[in-house]
Amino acid sequence: MGGVIPAAERAARAALTRLAEPGDAWLGRAVAGLGAAEVLDRVRSARAGEDERLGHYRVRLPALAADRELATRAGARVVVPGDDEWPAALDDLGERAPIALWVAGEGQLADAARRSVSVVGARACTAYGEHVAGELAAGLGDRGWTVVSGGAYGIDAAAHRGALAVDAPTVAVLACGVDVPYPAAHDGLLRAIRARGVVVSELPPGSRPTRRRFLDRNRVIAALGRGTVVVEAATRSGAKNTAGQADDLSRPVMAVPGPVTSAASVGCHELIRGRGAALVTDAADVLDLVGDLVTDARDLRRGEARPHDSLDPVTLRVLEALPVRRRASADSVGRVAGLDAPTVLRALGLLAATGLADAHEGRWRRTPTATRAPEPPMPG
Amino acid sequence: MGGVIPAAERAARAALTRLAEPGDAWLGRAVAGLGAAEVLDRVRSARAGEDERLGHYRVRLPALAADRELATRAGARVVVPGDDEWPAALDDLGERAPIALWVAGEGQLADAARRSVSVVGARACTAYGEHVAGELAAGLGDRGWTVVSGGAYGIDAAAHRGALAVDAPTVAVLACGVDVPYPAAHDGLLRAIRARGVVVSELPPGSRPTRRRFLDRNRVIAALGRGTVVVEAATRSGAKNTAGQADDLSRPVMAVPGPVTSAASVGCHELIRGRGAALVTDAADVLDLVGDLVTDARDLRRGEARPHDSLDPVTLRVLEALPVRRRASADSVGRVAGLDAPTVLRALGLLAATGLADAHEGRWRRTPTATRAPEPPMPG
Repeated sequence: MGGVIPAAERAARAALTRLAEPGDAWLGRAVAGLGAAEVLDRVRSARAGEDERLGHYRVRLPALAADRELATRAGARVVVPGDDEWPAALDDLGERAPIALWVAGEGQLADAARRSVSVVGARACTAYGEHVAGELAAGLGDRGWTVVSGGAYGIDAAAHRGALAVDAPTVAVLACGVDVPYPAAHDGLLRAIRARGVVVSELPPGSRPTRRRFLDRNRVIAALGRGTVVVEAATRSGAKNTAGQADDLSRPVMAVPGPVTSAASVGCHELIRGRGAALVTDAADVLDLVGDLVTDARDLRRGEARPHDSLDPVTLRVLEALPVRRRASADSVGRVAGLDAPTVLRALGLLAATGLADAHEGRWRRTPTATRAPEPPMPG
Repeated sequence: MGGVIPAAERAARAALTRLAEPGDAWLGRAVAGLGAAEVLDRVRSARAGEDERLGHYRVRLPALAADRELATRAGARVVVPGDDEWPAALDDLGERAPIALWVAGEGQLADAARRSVSVVGARACTAYGEHVAGELAAGLGDRGWTVVSGGAYGIDAAAHRGALAVDAPTVAVLACGVDVPYPAAHDGLLRAIRARGVVVSELPPGSRPTRRRFLDRNRVIAALGRGTVVVEAATRSGAKNTAGQADDLSRPVMAVPGPVTSAASVGCHELIRGRGAALVTDAADVLDLVGDLVTDARDLRRGEARPHDSLDPVTLRVLEALPVRRRASADSVGRVAGLDAPTVLRALGLLAATGLADAHEGRWRRTPTATRAPEPPMPG
């Protein structure tokens, strides 16, 4: 992983995440100018009273000793600028970019973040918000997009779960160490995210969340997504803060409307009315704003002239029998469709030729971006 | 009523509403150029084949005979341009302005339309939409604004009822004669509107509604309000048509958001997202867009520096005990507030001096524009 980064620089960046708080622009400038190893050396050698700023960082020097062991126990890796896994999007944060990230999970962060949308919202969400966040995330996942969120109760959790439900990668950016089960009830959710995606933090393992860290964490969520969707938010909320950070980064801010009688939607309505957020109602709306013109164009997902409109009934039946979220053998597809093998294979060939299906090691699925649009009118 | 309009011209305009369909721009130009009496004369004297257009109008000449009797039975008056009761806002329709209006009810149309908002929406609305339309209309009525709508099932009815509930005038613009109980179940509602406001139509008494007439009626609703609010609308709906007509007239178009899971809100979300409608959640939002800067300024209704912020607790308690929608005796206010008569009278005097309460024939209420904002935190 990232052999081009000198080991000392990597280690120094990791150490600085222990000594400083996230989003420290002074430190960002120092590291950009001198390199992390030199900055760390200066922190270590600073004498009391010599440089007040460096003195602050010295306070936590004793904690550094335990970090290697902590990181191993946490199953975390350090990702720094220049690594393959470093998401280029974070560089937009300039001097407030993370010095390094602690990453845990089977996913590859840069890959996951390449086509990603941040979905955030109230902890104290309603059943409506939870439902919408889950559907939105599943819709994004089905179309090959990664959902980035904060791993919190409420909208965050619903968004992560929606992505996981369609077996899509999702990224949780925490305001504590990636080994810290916060909130405690999300231990299982965070494990599931690690199994399919990644859990990320600027803070080294063992770090506890603080109010300040939540706010600084929000800028990483805002930077990782191509845009930020707020699903439910009270008039003052962390989600609105994340939206503001996305706006500062010139990323599209989107908000889901809700009943005007619901306090949980007030923040969303404020964002739309006063702050120029786009009103979005589903994944298609979101991708109209942040998606790639060709791959994600609405008419391929929803519109009148879908490629399969011209399919013969037998081929359409095979298409409808094809799973989206996993792969299946041609035999299995034939059983679902109730068609014999030669017919199924001919149809699969046609579907593959028009880009509606693809095969990998002899197992077939619908091409994710091509469908989900038509709910099969009737089984069979 | 408008003695300056020659009787022959008034009668001719009334007659032309029988002979032509609403929104007939050709007729509008002819009347503007020649006067209604001359146009009617030419219709009467036209011979078959001489002028195809005039020939069309001749088809209904036999129906004219019964109109005087019908109008009397309907309790309707004819209002034409130049009359005191003619709303100047209709002139914005240009050659598509109504030739004349048939008006029934105790209200005065021009007065009612001076500060008015059109509130429209789906016939097949949800309980949510009905609730929001009612609250919105009551909020507008409380602030001295008239609600204009179409008298239909659903949102229209809820808006009219919301206005009536706060004893505010409301205007129903029908696509049939003002004497035609359509829909039949709204006979009582239309009677209530006539008692406090007005029922209006371009069509003479006895006329039945048609699809075309509904669409043409919408332009009158759009023109009468300073802006149009759509509360709930499916993706294709009459309410969106009204919104389009308001937009054509450069009147603000507003829409109330709702759950993205509700088909009844899809049209509203489309208006906000794609068509530039403003998202509004209550009467205060609406008046931010169409209200008068001083009278309706948000800080008088909601803002930080409300006059009563400086009130002593006892006076505030009396204020909260004061009804908004009706008047009450000082004794009754005292009972609600749990305060003795001298205390209540002193507080009422103070409230009257600061404009927060007013008395009429010894009966008190909160001054409508001054409050409704603070829901009393707790009774007592």
